[in-house]
Amino acid sequence: MTQTSEIETLIDLMARLPGLGPRSARRAVLQMIRKRGLLLTPLARAMQEVSETARECLNCGNIGTSDICEICENPSRANGLLCVVEDVADLWAMERSGVFQGRYHVLGGTLSALDGVGPDELRIPQLLSRVESEAISEVILALNATIDGQTTAHYIADQLEHRVTLTSLAQGVPIGGELDYLDDGTITAAMQARKPI
Amino acid sequence: MTQTSEIETLIDLMARLPGLGPRSARRAVLQMIRKRGLLLTPLARAMQEVSETARECLNCGNIGTSDICEICENPSRANGLLCVVEDVADLWAMERSGVFQGRYHVLGGTLSALDGVGPDELRIPQLLSRVESEAISEVILALNATIDGQTTAHYIADQLEHRVTLTSLAQGVPIGGELDYLDDGTITAAMQARKPI
Repeated sequence: MTQTSEIETLIDLMARLPGLGPRSARRAVLQMIRKRGLLLTPLARAMQEVSETARECLNCGNIGTSDICEICENPSRANGLLCVVEDVADLWAMERSGVFQGRYHVLGGTLSALDGVGPDELRIPQLLSRVESEAISEVILALNATIDGQTTAHYIADQLEHRVTLTSLAQGVPIGGELDYLDDGTITAAMQARKPI
Repeated sequence: MTQTSEIETLIDLMARLPGLGPRSARRAVLQMIRKRGLLLTPLARAMQEVSETARECLNCGNIGTSDICEICENPSRANGLLCVVEDVADLWAMERSGVFQGRYHVLGGTLSALDGVGPDELRIPQLLSRVESEAISEVILALNATIDGQTTAHYIADQLEHRVTLTSLAQGVPIGGELDYLDDGTITAAMQARKPI
């Protein structure tokens, strides 16, 4: 073999990341080695640090470097709004938009009978108790518009009915979207939710 | 911000790798954090090791962990054949095929008037001296079938003419290739190089 074992190990590990296969992992590793000072060494250090410090927020499930994340620690975000998302990636996407100033609750997935995921496998019991303990007035169910996401939203809505205002994200044409490229379901939803100009 | 600075740094660095953008870098980092023991910690260690040990072979330009790579150190591969490739990735691809038992010479790119890459920017002077010092009988120009690759091959062929046997990889239909999907140039080359069955 020409790749020495350390380099092979690195390629094998990189190839396990989502979005990378063996070929792109080899390209990435060669690029890293070429740009050692700019990429490889800082990456090694950053991974070491994240590996030592990253943890799930005990309250909401966000990933941060302390037991309670920055959002849960920020008293100005305790405005009675709680946004329920499937995943930390969804939380980050919401935060990038900057539109939401309340707190989050990360479920960690969706209910799925096929995969054996019930309410207790997700962070649903914690959600129910947070609604009480944090005096939540409105729960925004920002789950993905997939079948599993909507099933989970319905289940949570059932649990929280009459205890809190429940809302979900509006469905319609995405900003910049062209009708010709949209699926029938989106067009139907946008038409049904049409509004006066 | 929700991502703490260590995680953001890691995402920014990952997004600089070829084949990854900001979005896939975020997905990869979340996956790493979820699989900390299986992915993140081993990756950090592997990168640290490669960052400390990887170096270019002084003789051929391959990447390994010693000043002279395993192929150049292996006396059984000194069979008088020298395969010239553009890149370490090409060398690795040749090695995976297992078909070549000689040694390599990695140019580190191709000649390019536009980008100001002349013979001295590549490892061409070293190639010429290796042909003498290692008693090479045949130089196989395994450069990419691109314009820059073929220009470089012609230049090297000019330099080595009458001193050594020069060959290049055969061009034709790839194994498993369907004619309908091949470009005209490949079909023309395959037709011109047709052989009796």
